[in-house]
Amino acid sequence: MHVGVLTGGGDCPGLNAVIRAVTLALVRECGARVTGIERGFEGLLHNRTRPLAPADVDGILAQGGTILGTQNRCNPFRDDTADGADRSAQAMQTVRALGLDAMIVIGGDGTMEIAHRFARLGMAIVGVPKTIDNDLCHNERSFGFDSAVAVVADALDRLATTARSHGRVMIAETMGRHAGWIALEGGLAGAADLIVIPELPYEIEAMAEQARERLADKGYALLCVAEGAHEPGGEALVQSSLAGEAPRLGGVAHHLERELASRLDREVRATVLGHLQRGGTPTPFDRVLATQLGFEAAQRVRRGKFGCMVSLQEGHFRSVPLTDVAGRYRSVALDHPLLRAAAGLGIGFGTAAR
Amino acid sequence: MHVGVLTGGGDCPGLNAVIRAVTLALVRECGARVTGIERGFEGLLHNRTRPLAPADVDGILAQGGTILGTQNRCNPFRDDTADGADRSAQAMQTVRALGLDAMIVIGGDGTMEIAHRFARLGMAIVGVPKTIDNDLCHNERSFGFDSAVAVVADALDRLATTARSHGRVMIAETMGRHAGWIALEGGLAGAADLIVIPELPYEIEAMAEQARERLADKGYALLCVAEGAHEPGGEALVQSSLAGEAPRLGGVAHHLERELASRLDREVRATVLGHLQRGGTPTPFDRVLATQLGFEAAQRVRRGKFGCMVSLQEGHFRSVPLTDVAGRYRSVALDHPLLRAAAGLGIGFGTAAR
Amino acid sequence: MHVGVLTGGGDCPGLNAVIRAVTLALVRECGARVTGIERGFEGLLHNRTRPLAPADVDGILAQGGTILGTQNRCNPFRDDTADGADRSAQAMQTVRALGLDAMIVIGGDGTMEIAHRFARLGMAIVGVPKTIDNDLCHNERSFGFDSAVAVVADALDRLATTARSHGRVMIAETMGRHAGWIALEGGLAGAADLIVIPELPYEIEAMAEQARERLADKGYALLCVAEGAHEPGGEALVQSSLAGEAPRLGGVAHHLERELASRLDREVRATVLGHLQRGGTPTPFDRVLATQLGFEAAQRVRRGKFGCMVSLQEGHFRSVPLTDVAGRYRSVALDHPLLRAAAGLGIGFGTAAR
Amino acid sequence: MHVGVLTGGGDCPGLNAVIRAVTLALVRECGARVTGIERGFEGLLHNRTRPLAPADVDGILAQGGTILGTQNRCNPFRDDTADGADRSAQAMQTVRALGLDAMIVIGGDGTMEIAHRFARLGMAIVGVPKTIDNDLCHNERSFGFDSAVAVVADALDRLATTARSHGRVMIAETMGRHAGWIALEGGLAGAADLIVIPELPYEIEAMAEQARERLADKGYALLCVAEGAHEPGGEALVQSSLAGEAPRLGGVAHHLERELASRLDREVRATVLGHLQRGGTPTPFDRVLATQLGFEAAQRVRRGKFGCMVSLQEGHFRSVPLTDVAGRYRSVALDHPLLRAAAGLGIGFGTAAR
Repeated sequence: MHVGVLTGGGDCPGLNAVIRAVTLALVRECGARVTGIERGFEGLLHNRTRPLAPADVDGILAQGGTILGTQNRCNPFRDDTADGADRSAQAMQTVRALGLDAMIVIGGDGTMEIAHRFARLGMAIVGVPKTIDNDLCHNERSFGFDSAVAVVADALDRLATTARSHGRVMIAETMGRHAGWIALEGGLAGAADLIVIPELPYEIEAMAEQARERLADKGYALLCVAEGAHEPGGEALVQSSLAGEAPRLGGVAHHLERELASRLDREVRATVLGHLQRGGTPTPFDRVLATQLGFEAAQRVRRGKFGCMVSLQEGHFRSVPLTDVAGRYRSVALDHPLLRAAAGLGIGFGTAAR
Repeated sequence: MHVGVLTGGGDCPGLNAVIRAVTLALVRECGARVTGIERGFEGLLHNRTRPLAPADVDGILAQGGTILGTQNRCNPFRDDTADGADRSAQAMQTVRALGLDAMIVIGGDGTMEIAHRFARLGMAIVGVPKTIDNDLCHNERSFGFDSAVAVVADALDRLATTARSHGRVMIAETMGRHAGWIALEGGLAGAADLIVIPELPYEIEAMAEQARERLADKGYALLCVAEGAHEPGGEALVQSSLAGEAPRLGGVAHHLERELASRLDREVRATVLGHLQRGGTPTPFDRVLATQLGFEAAQRVRRGKFGCMVSLQEGHFRSVPLTDVAGRYRSVALDHPLLRAAAGLGIGFGTAAR
Repeated sequence: MHVGVLTGGGDCPGLNAVIRAVTLALVRECGARVTGIERGFEGLLHNRTRPLAPADVDGILAQGGTILGTQNRCNPFRDDTADGADRSAQAMQTVRALGLDAMIVIGGDGTMEIAHRFARLGMAIVGVPKTIDNDLCHNERSFGFDSAVAVVADALDRLATTARSHGRVMIAETMGRHAGWIALEGGLAGAADLIVIPELPYEIEAMAEQARERLADKGYALLCVAEGAHEPGGEALVQSSLAGEAPRLGGVAHHLERELASRLDREVRATVLGHLQRGGTPTPFDRVLATQLGFEAAQRVRRGKFGCMVSLQEGHFRSVPLTDVAGRYRSVALDHPLLRAAAGLGIGFGTAAR
Repeated sequence: MHVGVLTGGGDCPGLNAVIRAVTLALVRECGARVTGIERGFEGLLHNRTRPLAPADVDGILAQGGTILGTQNRCNPFRDDTADGADRSAQAMQTVRALGLDAMIVIGGDGTMEIAHRFARLGMAIVGVPKTIDNDLCHNERSFGFDSAVAVVADALDRLATTARSHGRVMIAETMGRHAGWIALEGGLAGAADLIVIPELPYEIEAMAEQARERLADKGYALLCVAEGAHEPGGEALVQSSLAGEAPRLGGVAHHLERELASRLDREVRATVLGHLQRGGTPTPFDRVLATQLGFEAAQRVRRGKFGCMVSLQEGHFRSVPLTDVAGRYRSVALDHPLLRAAAGLGIGFGTAAR
């Protein structure tokens, strides 16, 4: 058996752990041959590959990012890196030329949509969910998310010592354009006093009042704000990035910095965590989760179960048809236990009536 | 409402997070009064308490251990710190004297057994599960466990650089006298080549052979061994500690160091992680989990749901009757997905036929 | 003997270590009484103090910030928090009323200038240098600096995994408005390919060319840029902050992000580290250095050596007259060994001829 | 120019940083060719080498250990891995066969002694000091030491949370058979109450009394003990390891555990840090120091300055003749500022009269 593996979309801690698990499971247990496809689907178009043996994946479990490279832009069905033409046949041809019996693709909803289309063209394909935002459907916890939350919690720990020393309001802006998972869990882990997420539009006066309460209580306040947070009916200040252009981060953090400074008699300081949340070594939790997902994907290849994505649901690994995943995402439900716990601890959401 | 809270048994990262969540939830949302009982049940015997207001729990989320103190020995039903007499009536009397409407006790199976006996005497009590070994029944993931696994993974990362540089076999001994959870998950997270747990008795020749395979493959080998690992029919080398006496750690690690050194033509070095696994700041994951458990316990107190322990099962928080918890523990089932994934990656367990 | 201690200016990891060392040394070895003055010199104006005994400083060695509080604005000789009047007599009066025999003040050049003026009014005062930027005169290494460098190195490690995975140019902006120490040492520690500091004005075309070289070499490039970096004759894009207003960080990072993106055919992404560099637990190095400085200050108080600042010079602790310190700072000399080493490794500085 | 580089003796964080700096400095700035010799001097005997170009050292700055491999045993002048014969001529022959114009050797006093003998045979050789114990002569701070101290400080932070929670005495045993640098600096950084080093023989009754004082003060006590600590006239409990055999660590820690437990009415627990102190990613401080040493060594090669070791003295890099280094080590002088600061803070040394 000869299996190809690629990573698509934005990088994320844990990708290498999946690549390693897939390789070890297929080579050691099935005697299969594994080939890495470089830079996502682009490697399928241009036949850029490298062999993956156990020695090649030694030491990569703890490394962030992906040894195969990745990128956000190449869609073989509409190749925006070139002229927008459909080059899927070329990709199918590479798969045949390489003699691949199956493909494992690791990526987010965009990657799963492409995988789904290849599956319909007859490619034997298994998906592994990757979303640092933890917002992919049918998957309750994705690798990379715990690592991102750890960066947010560490940042809040740091900002708290300054907030306490100076009696300040400190704001940390996290990832999360549409879904507030990172801000919510990171804020809980970092003892934020206010957590502001896209799912709960904020009102600036309510937010200021909630900050005032904490300042009265304990002399400082910590805010954890998702980049996509906005006022009711308003739009997120972060802008969709055109291909290759940097998104404008820090919009909401700096906006709130000014607005709160003018309402509170305190120094207010914003920090935008940005790319720090994506990089670096995965947490042990993410290493284990990613390893399990890689093993589960290899099992499906072994058993010939294709056209599906491995997923974690209520503590169990299941298979979800690729059709059910593509193009959908999961936001924080208003009755989610984490939100209720946060509310129950007196954490403010910046909403008028919390 | 006036609620008491205590921590019993060995310390563990996340205890302070539970104390903080209980305090914030009860004070801010219910207007209740919260009193901390010091040094476990001993504080109930000697009326050693301190008030807990939000300001008292500011900044403790990230602190390891417990601000209330704890200890392993005091059982009010059989007071081994004194003459072995039953002093439970004295404890009940303290609860009445303090005017406590309810008690929240955070602890392991010993603590839950005492809680259960107090419940039968009429105490309004809610338990919060604490076991760094993750081996309490009816609870699939306990706080402190992720932190312990992170210490093991970090240690294996460190040992790996030496193993690679010198071409050595390095052994890390983890906690786990009866259950191998920490060694299993820590070993997976730290890229161990062999994982040896009490549930799977090892045979030294098989272990040596598996180490030889990895040495041939990649020039070094990493072993992660639970302190309770033993040969078939054999006994664990770690001894039960008498009250107050240090348990003899490192038995199995140093035994394997000698046995493997004589079988392999390589330097073999053992490291016993011991108390490093218990202390220090909880991981963000454990902070969130402990916070949720504290909130859930406060909710049960609020609703008058007593005589139960909060537990996490398949991703949901539930209540388990204290009767069902006391004196039982959970070991690694031989068909557990983590074990299967480990086997599927070619990790050896030191067993004759893996 | 009764000694007061205060922390002035911006917070910094290691302040608590100094407070602890001062307290332990004076109380345990001299039997002195120690009083903490809260919120810098403001505490002297408003008589806000707290006693400091060994028990009060237990556990603070590893805590960032200052348990005494601090602030940037209060100068008793020109009280901008009120009407700008000279309230130094009021401060002297507090010192007498408290019965303080000596004062230890921990702070930067502003604080040392105030200390110098109090010394001339007859206050028995010893200074301890604090500058996270490592730019105080007559002091070759200040506590907090190693901690800030560690944050920068950790950030570059994280950004590198993304840079490699995506083939990007990643920029990290560090502290350093006038002096490039943090960017230089952080950049060396984090394997930056280009290091841009205020002492060496950059030219954008030269910088782009140096980035191109690294992209050709290894497929990605890492830039470490001090916030005060600027073009020849140009001004720093970061603006001096008015009292209480947030400085505009990220100016140069986002400027370079745009300028380089338009010159290189690669994605370029900037991250502004900002307040992350100030907070959090001090590194062990900083804990030891701050502890030694606190001990040395206590020794000077004990021996009646006042009007000086403790300093570290060529590995030895010395006393520098406060007159020599006030209002001066230390920038990176163009023949500094660190700069030469950086140049010798082929690190670019963005200058036309490096 | 063609330059060889090898690492000898025990591994240490920062070795890769030296290898990287040597490579970048020689290749990029001198256009030299660099060849890595594998597994210390053994590689010279068996001609095991690999080319080192900038791409080969990308990403290794933050990796612990050495990519070239190392080992403790091979001395070409007395080859104990074989028959004890002098094979230095064979090594000289390899150097000639490879066409090496110069050698850079990174290692401790054993390595420097071998380097010195090769220098006398006419090899153009430059030494880079490596000693995790910081005990090499003529060098005030060696890379790896800061990383080892950081492991000790982190361990003490962890043990402190347990010590506080349980009211225990916790002991950490560090490296340091002859010199107490790691225990002294690690103990200061980790807030140890007692620091016990080989240079100051301890008396058990004095030690118990000092622990009692701290228990009375604050309810727990932390001890940091070097592995070579011993009673006056006594011998260290750690035994010299025969080649390839594991040294017996934990001797003094477990001895003190028993002795103190019988004298104090408290639980006493020992932890032996062992190999954790050697492995893992170097601290930013060590990365910068090792980078500078590598650059300095390359400079000496460039200028033809051979037969010397680069060293750091009073903040400056100097050259020391290899004759002055071989076979000597540096212990903690009884009037060293760190010792005086520790004494001044009331830290006990377990000596009768401190």
